[in-house]
Amino acid sequence: MAISTRLTELLKVEHPILLAPMDVVADGRLAAAVSQAGAFGIIGGGYGNEAWLTREMDVARNARVGVGFITWSMAKNPRLLDLALERKPPAIILSFGDVQPHAGKIKRAGAKMICQIQTVAQAKDAVAQGADVLVAQGSEAGGHGMARGTFALVPAVVDVARGVPVAAAGGVADGRGLAAALMLGADGVLAGTRFFASQEAVGSSAAKERLVAASGDATIRSILFDIARRNVWPAPYTGRVLRNEFSERWRGREAELMQHQAAEAARYEEAKAAGDFDTAAVIAGEAVDMISDIPPAAEIVVRLVKEASALLAGSNRYRVSG
Amino acid sequence: MAISTRLTELLKVEHPILLAPMDVVADGRLAAAVSQAGAFGIIGGGYGNEAWLTREMDVARNARVGVGFITWSMAKNPRLLDLALERKPPAIILSFGDVQPHAGKIKRAGAKMICQIQTVAQAKDAVAQGADVLVAQGSEAGGHGMARGTFALVPAVVDVARGVPVAAAGGVADGRGLAAALMLGADGVLAGTRFFASQEAVGSSAAKERLVAASGDATIRSILFDIARRNVWPAPYTGRVLRNEFSERWRGREAELMQHQAAEAARYEEAKAAGDFDTAAVIAGEAVDMISDIPPAAEIVVRLVKEASALLAGSNRYRVSG
Repeated sequence: MAISTRLTELLKVEHPILLAPMDVVADGRLAAAVSQAGAFGIIGGGYGNEAWLTREMDVARNARVGVGFITWSMAKNPRLLDLALERKPPAIILSFGDVQPHAGKIKRAGAKMICQIQTVAQAKDAVAQGADVLVAQGSEAGGHGMARGTFALVPAVVDVARGVPVAAAGGVADGRGLAAALMLGADGVLAGTRFFASQEAVGSSAAKERLVAASGDATIRSILFDIARRNVWPAPYTGRVLRNEFSERWRGREAELMQHQAAEAARYEEAKAAGDFDTAAVIAGEAVDMISDIPPAAEIVVRLVKEASALLAGSNRYRVSG
Repeated sequence: MAISTRLTELLKVEHPILLAPMDVVADGRLAAAVSQAGAFGIIGGGYGNEAWLTREMDVARNARVGVGFITWSMAKNPRLLDLALERKPPAIILSFGDVQPHAGKIKRAGAKMICQIQTVAQAKDAVAQGADVLVAQGSEAGGHGMARGTFALVPAVVDVARGVPVAAAGGVADGRGLAAALMLGADGVLAGTRFFASQEAVGSSAAKERLVAASGDATIRSILFDIARRNVWPAPYTGRVLRNEFSERWRGREAELMQHQAAEAARYEEAKAAGDFDTAAVIAGEAVDMISDIPPAAEIVVRLVKEASALLAGSNRYRVSG
C-alpha cells in the first residue's frame, strides 16, 4: 500500500506522513525509525542545544531525516541551523516566527524549507518567503500553536498556497485523519501526539500511558505550563497539554500564578524530575481519543497508510452515484 | 450526482447535508429552499418565540423541514417544542443542554431526535438518551459552541456513537469539507455560515458581504457580544463572530464590559438596528475563507455534492497503489 502525493515526490519518501519535530521527544532514534518506515522523520531541534542536536543527528546518520526548529528561539543562536545544514538534510522545518533571515541559507544548502504556519496570513507570507512545503497546524495540535482549527484552516491554506504542497497538522492520529486531510486538499499530514505514544519516543511510560487513557475532552490550550517552567512564549502562542491537578488549580488565574512564579517553578521542576504528572504537563493534542496503545513508530506509519488507503479506495459507508 | 449515507436513509433525503438551525437566520423560507434542493432544512427556533415559529412553520409547510432549539432556552417554555411537534416534523434538533426531559415527547411524536454535541462525553450522554443522529460541532463553527476542533472531535464521536449516524459541523463550506467529513467516519455535514451567505437567509446584504470579504483568521470566539446584547450563556459556551471594532476594543476586558453593560448594550442595540457592523456582531465560522459569493441556497447544495462526489470518486492529486 502506498499513497503518492506531491509531498512524497518532493521529499522523496514513500508515505505522505511527517513526524512533528517535538522538542526533546523527537530525537534521532524516533526520527530514524519514522524515516526507515518510509515516512519523513524530523529531529526536534526545539529550543536548541548544540550538544544534543549533534548527538541526535549522529544517532540518525544512517536515515534520511529532517531537522526542525522553533524559529524565534533558533534565531537567538543561528549556529544551530548551520550545524544542521552541515549534515545536508533533505529538509529543515521552521515553526513559530519569521523565516526570512534563514531562507537563503537553507536554500543554498540544498535543503527544502518546510514552514509550519497557523493562519492564512502566515501561509501567504511563508509562500512569499519561498516555502517548499507548508504545514497548516490547527489548534487541536499538542504543544504550542494558535487558535484556528485544522478542518477549515487546511483548505483555506491550500487556496493561497500557489501550488506549494500542504501538510495538515493538529488532530491526525489515524488513517481517517490522513484520508480527510487529502480530501481537504492537503498532500499529507504531520503527526505529533500519535508518535509520542510510540515505543521509540523519548518520554516516561507514565506520560505515554496518560495519552492512552485520556480523552481529547481533557486537553487544554493555555500558558500555565509555560509560566511554571519559566518559558513564556510571545503572544499569541499557547500550548496544548493534558489537564491535570496543576492546570485545574490555576486555570483562569494566570496573573496570580505569575506572582507566585518562583515558588511554583521550583515545585514544577521537582514534579517533572519525579515524573509526577499531576503537576508536570503531558503535552498532547486533541487526537488522544484515537490513541489506545504504544506501538513501534513503524507500525503507526503502516496503520495510517493502510487505513487511509482503504478509505480512499471506497471502503466506507457512503455510496456515490449519478 | 448523489451521495447516500445512513443519514440520507434515516432522514429520507437525497443529500447528506443539514442546514444549521441558525437563530433568526434560518427561517421557513431558507429551510424550505434547502429541503427542496434535496438536503435537510431546519428552522432555527433559537431562543423561542411562538408567533415567529408558527409563522415560519407555515411558510415552510410545503417542504419537509426540521425544527431546531437551543435546549436550555426552550426548556423554559416547552410549549415551543409542542408547537413544533404538532406539525409532525421529520426531526427535531436539540443543541446546548440536557435532552432528557424532551426525548420521550419527541419520540412519541414520531420525530427523529438529532442532538448537537461539542464533546465526546456529551456524545456518549446523547446516545444514552436515545439520539437518532449526533451532530459533532467543532469550535470552528459560527455562533455558540465550545472548544474542541472538528477534525479530531468527529472521529472520536464516531467511535463512541454505537452506530448512531454522525454529522460533522464547524468548518464545512464546500465539497472538500463534505468529503473530508465522510473520511473521518461521519455520515454527512451540518453547515451554517455557508447558508447564511445565501440569497434566502435572513440578514442584511451588508452582513453577508462581510462574510464574503472576511478570512477565518478574522473570527473570534468570545462572550463579548453576549454581554453587549444582555444574553450571556451558561459556561463553557462562547460564540464565534467576525472581529470588528467592538470586539477589538473589549477583547480580554470582559469584566470591565460587564461594568459598562447598561450603556454598551444600548449603544449595541442602536448599532444593530442601524446595520452598523463595526459594533454589531456578524456571526460567522472559520469557514468564511471558502465563501466568496451569495448564491441561492439550492446552488450551495448542488456545489457541495458535486465537488464532494468528484473528490470521493478519486479526482484528486493523490494516487493509491499496492
